Amino acid sequence: MSTLELARKAKLASIPLSDTAVELRNRALLAMAEALQERASEIVAANQIDLEASAELGDALRKRLVFNDKKLADVVAGLKALAGLPDPIGRVMTRTELAEGLHLQRVSCPIGVIGIIFEARPDALVQISSLCLKSGNAVLLKGGREALHTNRILAEVIREATVSVGIPGDWIQLLETREDVNEMLHLNEYIDLIVPRGSNSFVKYIMENTTIPVLGHSAGICHLYLDASAESRMAAKIAVDAKSQAPATCNTIETLLVHQEAAGRLLPVVCEALRQAKVELRGDEASRRIVPDLLPATEEDWSTEYLSLVLSIKVVADVQEAVDHINRYGSHHTDAIVTQDAATARFFQRRVDSADVFWNASTRFADGFRFGLGAEVGISTSKIHSRGPVGLEGLTIYKWLIDGSGDTVAPFAEGTRKFTHRTE
Amino acid sequence: MSTLELARKAKLASIPLSDTAVELRNRALLAMAEALQERASEIVAANQIDLEASAELGDALRKRLVFNDKKLADVVAGLKALAGLPDPIGRVMTRTELAEGLHLQRVSCPIGVIGIIFEARPDALVQISSLCLKSGNAVLLKGGREALHTNRILAEVIREATVSVGIPGDWIQLLETREDVNEMLHLNEYIDLIVPRGSNSFVKYIMENTTIPVLGHSAGICHLYLDASAESRMAAKIAVDAKSQAPATCNTIETLLVHQEAAGRLLPVVCEALRQAKVELRGDEASRRIVPDLLPATEEDWSTEYLSLVLSIKVVADVQEAVDHINRYGSHHTDAIVTQDAATARFFQRRVDSADVFWNASTRFADGFRFGLGAEVGISTSKIHSRGPVGLEGLTIYKWLIDGSGDTVAPFAEGTRKFTHRTE
Repeated sequence: MSTLELARKAKLASIPLSDTAVELRNRALLAMAEALQERASEIVAANQIDLEASAELGDALRKRLVFNDKKLADVVAGLKALAGLPDPIGRVMTRTELAEGLHLQRVSCPIGVIGIIFEARPDALVQISSLCLKSGNAVLLKGGREALHTNRILAEVIREATVSVGIPGDWIQLLETREDVNEMLHLNEYIDLIVPRGSNSFVKYIMENTTIPVLGHSAGICHLYLDASAESRMAAKIAVDAKSQAPATCNTIETLLVHQEAAGRLLPVVCEALRQAKVELRGDEASRRIVPDLLPATEEDWSTEYLSLVLSIKVVADVQEAVDHINRYGSHHTDAIVTQDAATARFFQRRVDSADVFWNASTRFADGFRFGLGAEVGISTSKIHSRGPVGLEGLTIYKWLIDGSGDTVAPFAEGTRKFTHRTE
Repeated sequence: MSTLELARKAKLASIPLSDTAVELRNRALLAMAEALQERASEIVAANQIDLEASAELGDALRKRLVFNDKKLADVVAGLKALAGLPDPIGRVMTRTELAEGLHLQRVSCPIGVIGIIFEARPDALVQISSLCLKSGNAVLLKGGREALHTNRILAEVIREATVSVGIPGDWIQLLETREDVNEMLHLNEYIDLIVPRGSNSFVKYIMENTTIPVLGHSAGICHLYLDASAESRMAAKIAVDAKSQAPATCNTIETLLVHQEAAGRLLPVVCEALRQAKVELRGDEASRRIVPDLLPATEEDWSTEYLSLVLSIKVVADVQEAVDHINRYGSHHTDAIVTQDAATARFFQRRVDSADVFWNASTRFADGFRFGLGAEVGISTSKIHSRGPVGLEGLTIYKWLIDGSGDTVAPFAEGTRKFTHRTE
């Protein structure tokens, strides 16, 4: 079937799906968990085929590709937790009496059809599709091609399990090729939102080649700014965590900014700690005057996402210069300040134009699970709809409902009837 | 100056603007009101030039183009009302203790720079720019070219008035040509959201030619469905209001759907009332069997926005067929049902995939002012961010702030520290 046809089917299924009771959606999530456990050996066997075909991949990629009993246990636990969360749709957000007998409600509802493109990580397929199901959305899924066999069986198991309790089967559709993705980018009539995950260049490609709304982030150029009053031990601890706790992730810092008045006090301690964590350090001239054996940083370093144990360092005049640098070179993802001065922290948090702005905490906390949102479908640096970790709420929108009793606008226009606009 | 340069300046101004106290923004709104009154004669004189150059325009367009004492009084009243509304930014939306001493807040903030393209209606310039100012956003404005002289003086007066109280002057930028708009569509780095208003084809052009997020609606193909249990008097009253109260507006109905069991009872009464309101009626075969002198409707009618006193009529089997027709041919804007049956009304409200879905009320109520949102910058049929009338809240987003005390992710990853995720 063509991508157009799959998307059209998903759109048609999205309407009855949007109108299912939360009990049914929760039952479907539990049926998914059960079916995945029952058919574990089939899934692991399919995963084995993918793993064998990907022998040339690096360890990190193979670790993501594997779907074993441990991963199964994790996704099953995730499904059960998700079934226990409150219903994100059908929530009355506001209620207004417009005039006597005329009532307006704003009610949360699903977005419709979500197209999600994700890396070769089969557990992500389960997580993403379950978030869509809980929020009443149909989903087109395209996973990394290395996971093709695993994704096929997972999608089949999920579809069958959800159909068995009464969910319309067309709610979940698996795309398999890069051409399918390119076709998807033009299906504005059937797809309401695209969430691309993966490499910077891939996400950028998606963002630049569709007029369907996109939530995601292409780069994660995050900063840590050490203010004049930063404690050196806290600064070192946060810098090490923010750089080395998981160097290939998007919320890892790429640049360390240091207030000029504190650079002499802080940089020796912080650089020593980073070196013990095996981080390669590149500094501007001012920082190299303080720590002479830093490698020289170039202009290009300020806009580079290393995704590895490399960090650039720059001395700035004050918090204003730090903010300006971050807003200019950063990717509006996650940035943090270390300071003992609350007023400076608040200034930084107000002025830095990023999804997440932290005070005396590692940038690594930027994550849906750590934020307590449940799982996330991705992290968004968009300035509309959903910013930062996108969880269940980011997969919902609302509609406006009026209940009247034969009301027309004419008498209001003529002035014989008046709006009350009373919050109910 | 190039559009790029104007957008860059607006972006730079947007950061300090986002960090202004609401008292300052309100003072700026009142300064705008005062300055517009003081310089009324200059503005009216500029408007006279525009009106003289547009002598060939129709009455409806000239009525929108005029800026006289009445329009001035309206915008001044609007500015004063806006100054009295609560601050849409800086609002703490959620507060969570992530772990002991580690606190997360989600705080509303401006989107950044909004590009708004609007019709030749100078009062809209004041309304739109004031909504952006109140919500802390910088704005690029491009009004219809017929209003050029009026828009120039209005933008100058607004800029001077707001600068006089301490707002950064670059927050408001006026674009003047269609080429400026085309340039704007590619400035993803500086413009965060585009709101196009105007003709269907123009809005469609914008939506299809930019990857910057767009809020708006290209068509307003709205429906009224008369269910089996509809009262004929109520049906006629709502149909007449929804079609003829302001036929050129987007929330006016284009198609009337009638349940087959009630068509014989309802159509003669409703068609007679519509004819008295001078509406040209086009019907499908089934409706022409009941009201023989209807003009024949063709397939094209179901997807046509007449924007005039024309209405197409179709008999449907039941509410399910009505919903299917609306979701297929409609523009996801505003649709209404007339019925005495609450269960059918709720089914219709849940299943119709539109921004506004009304029960026993005219579609003409779909409007920011009538909804009690204050003014609106436009109406959106997008499925993300803001749906239906876009008021102040639609011009805001949020950021996530963490306050910590030196917290790192490592101990959580190692299991020596646990998240509490306690709502505060």
